[in-house]
Amino acid sequence: MEYNDLNCTKAYKELLDAPKASVKALLGKERIEKNEIKLGGGLKYNWAAMPIDENICSKLQALADEMDIVEKYKKILSGEMMNVGEKRLVLHHLTRGNVLSVKVEGDGEDKQAFYEGELAKIKDFAQKVHSGEIKGSTGKKFTTVCQIGIGGSDLGPRALYLALKGYEKKMNAEFISNVDPDDAADVISRLDFETTLFILVSKSGTTQETLTNRDLVLETLRKSPIKGLDSSKHIVAVTSKTSPLAQGKSVLASFFIDDYIGGRYSSTSAVGGVVLSLAYGYEVFEKILKGAHEEDCLSLEKDVTKNGALLDALIGVYLRNIKNYPATAILPYSQALSRFPAHLQQLDMESNGKSVNRHGKKVDYPTGPVIFGEPGTNGQHSFYQLLHQGTDIVPLQFIGFKNSQYGFDIITDGSYSQTKLNANLAAQIVAFALGKDDENPNKVFEGERCSSLIYGDKLTPESLGALLAHFENKVMFQGFLWNLNSFDQEGVQLGKVLAKKVLKGEGDEVLKAFAGKLI
Amino acid sequence: MEYNDLNCTKAYKELLDAPKASVKALLGKERIEKNEIKLGGGLKYNWAAMPIDENICSKLQALADEMDIVEKYKKILSGEMMNVGEKRLVLHHLTRGNVLSVKVEGDGEDKQAFYEGELAKIKDFAQKVHSGEIKGSTGKKFTTVCQIGIGGSDLGPRALYLALKGYEKKMNAEFISNVDPDDAADVISRLDFETTLFILVSKSGTTQETLTNRDLVLETLRKSPIKGLDSSKHIVAVTSKTSPLAQGKSVLASFFIDDYIGGRYSSTSAVGGVVLSLAYGYEVFEKILKGAHEEDCLSLEKDVTKNGALLDALIGVYLRNIKNYPATAILPYSQALSRFPAHLQQLDMESNGKSVNRHGKKVDYPTGPVIFGEPGTNGQHSFYQLLHQGTDIVPLQFIGFKNSQYGFDIITDGSYSQTKLNANLAAQIVAFALGKDDENPNKVFEGERCSSLIYGDKLTPESLGALLAHFENKVMFQGFLWNLNSFDQEGVQLGKVLAKKVLKGEGDEVLKAFAGKLI
Repeated sequence: MEYNDLNCTKAYKELLDAPKASVKALLGKERIEKNEIKLGGGLKYNWAAMPIDENICSKLQALADEMDIVEKYKKILSGEMMNVGEKRLVLHHLTRGNVLSVKVEGDGEDKQAFYEGELAKIKDFAQKVHSGEIKGSTGKKFTTVCQIGIGGSDLGPRALYLALKGYEKKMNAEFISNVDPDDAADVISRLDFETTLFILVSKSGTTQETLTNRDLVLETLRKSPIKGLDSSKHIVAVTSKTSPLAQGKSVLASFFIDDYIGGRYSSTSAVGGVVLSLAYGYEVFEKILKGAHEEDCLSLEKDVTKNGALLDALIGVYLRNIKNYPATAILPYSQALSRFPAHLQQLDMESNGKSVNRHGKKVDYPTGPVIFGEPGTNGQHSFYQLLHQGTDIVPLQFIGFKNSQYGFDIITDGSYSQTKLNANLAAQIVAFALGKDDENPNKVFEGERCSSLIYGDKLTPESLGALLAHFENKVMFQGFLWNLNSFDQEGVQLGKVLAKKVLKGEGDEVLKAFAGKLI
Repeated sequence: MEYNDLNCTKAYKELLDAPKASVKALLGKERIEKNEIKLGGGLKYNWAAMPIDENICSKLQALADEMDIVEKYKKILSGEMMNVGEKRLVLHHLTRGNVLSVKVEGDGEDKQAFYEGELAKIKDFAQKVHSGEIKGSTGKKFTTVCQIGIGGSDLGPRALYLALKGYEKKMNAEFISNVDPDDAADVISRLDFETTLFILVSKSGTTQETLTNRDLVLETLRKSPIKGLDSSKHIVAVTSKTSPLAQGKSVLASFFIDDYIGGRYSSTSAVGGVVLSLAYGYEVFEKILKGAHEEDCLSLEKDVTKNGALLDALIGVYLRNIKNYPATAILPYSQALSRFPAHLQQLDMESNGKSVNRHGKKVDYPTGPVIFGEPGTNGQHSFYQLLHQGTDIVPLQFIGFKNSQYGFDIITDGSYSQTKLNANLAAQIVAFALGKDDENPNKVFEGERCSSLIYGDKLTPESLGALLAHFENKVMFQGFLWNLNSFDQEGVQLGKVLAKKVLKGEGDEVLKAFAGKLI
């Protein structure tokens, strides 16, 4: 298997030469019905409003074939060392099922058995907490779970937790992430320690923010006037077996992850599993895994018109490298997905925001775009002005569901709120794509603003899992296309090193001058 | 006064020809101390880490002079019709003070007197609610205020409310914005109607989302088993005098805004004033206004090295139009500012995301960039990878404060959390600017990632007001530089029209095909 740069391929050169297509010219009823791919969890990916005609599509297929994109995915699934920078396997797919039904070994153990073992521990623990068999140190039942973690230990689990808020909760969840002490102060002010279970999440067990916030919580517990509070009965850890957090007896229980699950890909591991199983029940977490696994299986398809994640990835590369669009907006028409764009921002920008290929050579084409987004219709009253009439085109990824979660709705002015929400979504796709002429140049919409739509009946645990896996796999496929290692993050290291210097009073005069203004 | 396009000016052509400057080469201790401007509210704007040398800076000064930028600001302050598209004055500055001490008339009335009159009403009303003179319909004291509004009636007030959470609250605040019924359902599930006061905010009184959510709330109130609940005693309106909401007797009180305050500039009007005065007390809102007014006064300075908002605007245009950077990240090292980037996203992208100049002619240069951001240190564990090592350079706007708000902090590993937070901030500025060489190309940081820093002692109501005004004025100045009307938003209209068609079952086959998938 070869790992070549995108611009060394024959198909890429043909794509560059292919006549551009116009969304306005292409878009019609038939295309809208036809250009649609089944995803997992009952979702569909519609790419009718993308500037991709049959000719370009066939060249995208040729590109995927020439670069062996699906075969590279199979290498990941088979347990090859695909995180070449850190010399690690990439096993997040295995946390939700064994797509190829192969045995994957790492650290001398069967990795599927390891992940399934942790799942069994989570299931058992959550049931004991919910039944009251495991209680707080003063004998009260746990009603709140508070996750302490940052980055991948925060954004994904938090986005998934918020996404299911319309479902019956077994426990309330809170999250502390930022090293800014005001974050912990605000959350702690809402907590009743007697009924709160903390989850400390750090793979390495050395994350500065997480250890600091743990200590803040421990100190507050210690100072609490409540008699009999024992912090070790109120904390569980999610970490690697070899981390400092896994040692000692200061926690009620430990759940393990390993080096083969990158932080931003860890939502379906114990990192997301413990908090989601406690909040909604293990069965709900299991449904998320099911939806994700279904999508992982569909991502094996080699025909790009039948593989949503792969086509989404290919179109994204086309828009980034051939059309030169520098950003992409994620626009869920679902308040429940309010923090999903923030999770995808990490997933995408941390995976593919890189300038050297997997061999360490500088690439000479743009890689990962800027990702941002807010839920619709809120965004319509905010930054959509620029999306419609700004000087740059920003490709759009819409997400929508026929039905609301709570089912709490009324008819006003002839329609349900949910209908209004979706009428707006449909209207925006068309407004962006087709635009509108006007005598007043200020009211002209040029159109040709391309978008895709992922939609389904309802945001359920299964469809949520599939949605997550869709974007994870899209990002993975794009990493293959750009010939990157999407699974390390060397770009976060320098800041850590310099911050430590500041705290030790070290560093050059520039560092000291800036630090002096703030400390 | 002439209104010319940016690229018709002599200074712009000279800027294009000026040799580029290197942040790495420029940055030193002396520059860090010198390149700093006093803002309102005790804040400072530091631009040491920007690729602006003395030569470029003098050309930015020439550009500001040639385009009469400060004079144009004075036109706004004097009450000229600067929103040319909608033929309206632009008076948000007047909501916090009269910078030029001139009488501004609109709609046949003295506008300063009008805004001050509304402020007096807000002060009186808030005091009566806090004292219990105004109670809910069942005789209980109001403890929660729930704002129903979207866009400018939501993002700014919400960001400011969250920004002050470390201060003593008089009432808890909640916000309902999205037409997605799950938004209202989630918020309503947390409310006790007997003690909740709703604020309905819509300038026109016709905003679909806001009326729909009002009706959802009214219906829920109607169905409540609590005896004696009278919705008209639980709702106040913030709207224009002529709007449908201002009529009728269905509200407890009305507070007025007018057509001269754009939604995204309305945080310092009654739109932000009622909710913030109820939540924190009128005195706190008054301090926000004071900080904003102080910054408005400082923005009159013609020397660009003494006018933070103006220099920030000029540097932004330089980065966008000469360096061709398409996005800007807002990175507050303050959890309290968690939603401030979302507000600035609207403020900036809705104001300057436009392709035609104020005369209706298409401009042939890029205008407003994509704006996004999350609080640090959270962002460091998310999208910073791309900012450090991605293929595009994204200019950064850091914000930081020496002290936390809650003052709840402990020493771990030799330093306070607040110190760790700021050590990270200083480290990031330097890491982005100077980078680092390495034998391993994967660990190379090229540097030259430019940033500015706004900082102060503490995020107080005054500094918050100044921060808000800084960005409002920056965006206004950039609108002048790009020769745009920054005060209309025609780009939001087409979607509204098409959504109405969907709801009426009208529209062409393309619109119907998309709607059919979702409804």
